[in-house]
Amino acid sequence: MDGIDITAPRRRRAGGRRGHAERAGTAVHEQMPFRQPRNPDPPVEPLDAEGVQAIHRGVLRILSEIGIEFLNPEALGHLKAAGCRVEGTNVRMDADFVTEMLSRAPASFTLTPRNPAHALRVGEGYMAFGNVSSPPNYWDIHTRKQSGSMLRFRDLMKLTQHFNCIHFAGGYPVEPIEIHASVRHLDCLFEKLTLSDKVMHAYSLGRERVEDVMEMVRIAGGLTHEEFEAQPRMYTNINSVSPLKHDFPMLEGAMLHARRGQPVIVTPFTLAGAMAPVTMAGAVTLSLAEGIAAISLLQWIAPGCPVVIGTFTSNVDMKSGAPAFGTPEYMRATQMTGQMARFYGLPVRSSGVCAANVPDGQAMWETGQSLWAAVQSGSNFVYHAAGWLEGGLIASPEKFVMDCEVLQQIQRYFDPALWATTEEDIAVDAVRAVGPEGHYFGTPHTQERYQTAFYQPFLSDWRNWEAWDAAGAIWTAERAYTLSRRIIDAFEAPPMDPAIREELSEFVARRKREGGAPTDF
Amino acid sequence: MDGIDITAPRRRRAGGRRGHAERAGTAVHEQMPFRQPRNPDPPVEPLDAEGVQAIHRGVLRILSEIGIEFLNPEALGHLKAAGCRVEGTNVRMDADFVTEMLSRAPASFTLTPRNPAHALRVGEGYMAFGNVSSPPNYWDIHTRKQSGSMLRFRDLMKLTQHFNCIHFAGGYPVEPIEIHASVRHLDCLFEKLTLSDKVMHAYSLGRERVEDVMEMVRIAGGLTHEEFEAQPRMYTNINSVSPLKHDFPMLEGAMLHARRGQPVIVTPFTLAGAMAPVTMAGAVTLSLAEGIAAISLLQWIAPGCPVVIGTFTSNVDMKSGAPAFGTPEYMRATQMTGQMARFYGLPVRSSGVCAANVPDGQAMWETGQSLWAAVQSGSNFVYHAAGWLEGGLIASPEKFVMDCEVLQQIQRYFDPALWATTEEDIAVDAVRAVGPEGHYFGTPHTQERYQTAFYQPFLSDWRNWEAWDAAGAIWTAERAYTLSRRIIDAFEAPPMDPAIREELSEFVARRKREGGAPTDF
Repeated sequence: MDGIDITAPRRRRAGGRRGHAERAGTAVHEQMPFRQPRNPDPPVEPLDAEGVQAIHRGVLRILSEIGIEFLNPEALGHLKAAGCRVEGTNVRMDADFVTEMLSRAPASFTLTPRNPAHALRVGEGYMAFGNVSSPPNYWDIHTRKQSGSMLRFRDLMKLTQHFNCIHFAGGYPVEPIEIHASVRHLDCLFEKLTLSDKVMHAYSLGRERVEDVMEMVRIAGGLTHEEFEAQPRMYTNINSVSPLKHDFPMLEGAMLHARRGQPVIVTPFTLAGAMAPVTMAGAVTLSLAEGIAAISLLQWIAPGCPVVIGTFTSNVDMKSGAPAFGTPEYMRATQMTGQMARFYGLPVRSSGVCAANVPDGQAMWETGQSLWAAVQSGSNFVYHAAGWLEGGLIASPEKFVMDCEVLQQIQRYFDPALWATTEEDIAVDAVRAVGPEGHYFGTPHTQERYQTAFYQPFLSDWRNWEAWDAAGAIWTAERAYTLSRRIIDAFEAPPMDPAIREELSEFVARRKREGGAPTDF
Repeated sequence: MDGIDITAPRRRRAGGRRGHAERAGTAVHEQMPFRQPRNPDPPVEPLDAEGVQAIHRGVLRILSEIGIEFLNPEALGHLKAAGCRVEGTNVRMDADFVTEMLSRAPASFTLTPRNPAHALRVGEGYMAFGNVSSPPNYWDIHTRKQSGSMLRFRDLMKLTQHFNCIHFAGGYPVEPIEIHASVRHLDCLFEKLTLSDKVMHAYSLGRERVEDVMEMVRIAGGLTHEEFEAQPRMYTNINSVSPLKHDFPMLEGAMLHARRGQPVIVTPFTLAGAMAPVTMAGAVTLSLAEGIAAISLLQWIAPGCPVVIGTFTSNVDMKSGAPAFGTPEYMRATQMTGQMARFYGLPVRSSGVCAANVPDGQAMWETGQSLWAAVQSGSNFVYHAAGWLEGGLIASPEKFVMDCEVLQQIQRYFDPALWATTEEDIAVDAVRAVGPEGHYFGTPHTQERYQTAFYQPFLSDWRNWEAWDAAGAIWTAERAYTLSRRIIDAFEAPPMDPAIREELSEFVARRKREGGAPTDF
């Protein structure tokens, strides 16, 4: 992958079984190698030039006339110093300030986790996909719905590490609710950092948690404090409290990240008709205004800090109030946000989401539509890309495996070999040689290429009905469950220097002795 | 729909309960009205200018250097008269002839069935979706796989007529194998024409069948022979016998259609690595060469006759030889064919297809990817868009209903209301009025719009897990089965003048007395 600045960790702690993680699991099933895909298609851009300007004018009017609530005194102090109009918690920003702050944001950057082979470029058409984040519940076809636990957290982290089409670890793949909130982040990050060597995330839930996670990511990478801060090593995601508010802990975590050079994804959650206008352009405009307000703060306190604008705009079911995902409205909102992100020069995040409760047909058309909208929107960072059910309330291993099948296909879809038109690809000579009576399978043209010519699924069953029936007539969700258990059972953690592991353990033990983090946020 | 030339049928037979078909079924579930959608997105075009030229050169080389087999003496005679080089059944066409013939083909045309409210524009960015065609088998969750029958044929035709997102009737939605092949077309067309008033199809399986179907479509429309031939009333689809061949009955049927002004869709079936080169550009080039050869013949004998170029290029599973559908390779082949069709000035047909055996997650990601590829490729006519399983060997009512949910969403996705950016859409005043503490549901801005703001699914279940579980925890396929039975049970046929129905019956009876059609093709 050209252009990625990969800084090796300190040598005394690196080395060892590099590459083992890529090989692990090949005994269970074949998969494509870890490789960050680059989206070659022009984005789908629903807005004409006037539409872009109309949304931009709306964003500026919200920011300058209505203002955003910043429920964080430190943030308010900074914004006052920056010349914004601050009244109570309301902050109004004028167009010049916003334009200046946006101009400071980099269009792309590189995230380097403890295994630099898993470094990710964010921007420039690259895409990165992450696991489902933060469901309070777990579901599989045998347990059905149950509260999240550390057992299931570990299962899902193993899937996250195993699948090469998953590029980064999002938030907790399920909440281990049996662990007290004061120390949950310590146990979770210890598990995440030892089970995975991919890019890590910190929840912005108060200063202590963010600082603990940063310290653990630093230790796991074998980095000095200076090396940690020298480039993006991890990231956080913050949501606004729509409409028009940023809360205290999210802002605090975001500012901590920005000051130490760690990326902040700002993702307002605007459901049209609920916490945002019922019109999709209105919901997108509000979302962008909220996101740009936070990004402007971050660029003021840490000029040039890496940021991403996120979209989580969908609609509610007007009958029940339930959120809907992967709908036509969701697709167009995602595309519009991507188009505006390019207008503002920011990388963009979107998601793989659905409202379905089980990993069935509905789950896959809704999730498929959201994932293809991520592609169409030119998204760079795709959250929740595997494992999400019930509007994010359930994490499912079956859904995780099924989504990974789709994600691999999306990544294969980007391969220019599929539309190459060299003389050898056009293959007139092969057509001549085979003639009207022959078959292409045995030809040299085919034999030279057949092993790599086509996408090979690991989950799709392409046998005919009779062969599929004779093998037990297993529907996709059940096949996915079986495969998930085989992957989890065969899982080998990526290598970690024992001294680093010990240092992480000691850090966790010490912080637990100190009482962990406050829980009164 | 602007620009459609709708010729009313003879008045003495028209009238009656016009519009009834649209209202029928609203008691079972709500759906969007019958309306042909227009695709507003620019197509995804993988090929650069040199890639287009490379494929075009390959097409011309195949046509001029290798030649296509035309297994039909009449066709050979025409092509010889046209100046093509004919040796035995091999016909070579030079670039000038092909270019001249392609220039005769219209870029768009209108298909008008017996109910002119169901007329379809083919071309100009319009899309039309049809039901699954020609599976020999039927499957539902209760019967499992069984041979096709007239009972199931009727069931599936009722779904075809019921769903407004299905614009035309393809071939038989399942083969009624208990009916002898000599008279099957008579019984099938009687059922199709009385159960549906949408655009009809004829199989090009010999002169007698084609002429019978044309006569029945003419009678059903209450048309004189002159009125029938004055504009497109129905269509046929022919496949080549890849590689490089067109067979006798397909050519005969195509020529019969062209001479009477009825559209011919030419759809080579080229599986890369089997009957076509293993490279996708090679398979597309061969497919285009075969298709253009037939189109050139038709434009020679009936200049300006309406034609469509079809794509059915996918890949095989190189392990089993099984065809794969809805793969990344399939998507790119469809996009490339669409791009080349625009280069040649032809409308394009593609399909909604999958390799899955049951209507589960795999079925929906594969079919979804093929349907979105139809959108991305700028396809005008989409075969098999609802009900297809097992690579086309099974028709399923569950899958039909599930696909229609996706098709409605695609059609909603095209609605410019989703990205409208008027001042009212941007909604800064509503944002100001609601402020940071409010909720948008009760606002006038929302109340004025909420009933039409968002797509309303008829099959997706958006309840939370607990409500869904309490209602029986029904997975999508089972919900779809139940809905399909309710639709079929409540079905009311569209109105037909009793005199026309009688004339159709008499025609079928007479042709049966005459022995039907030969079965030795």
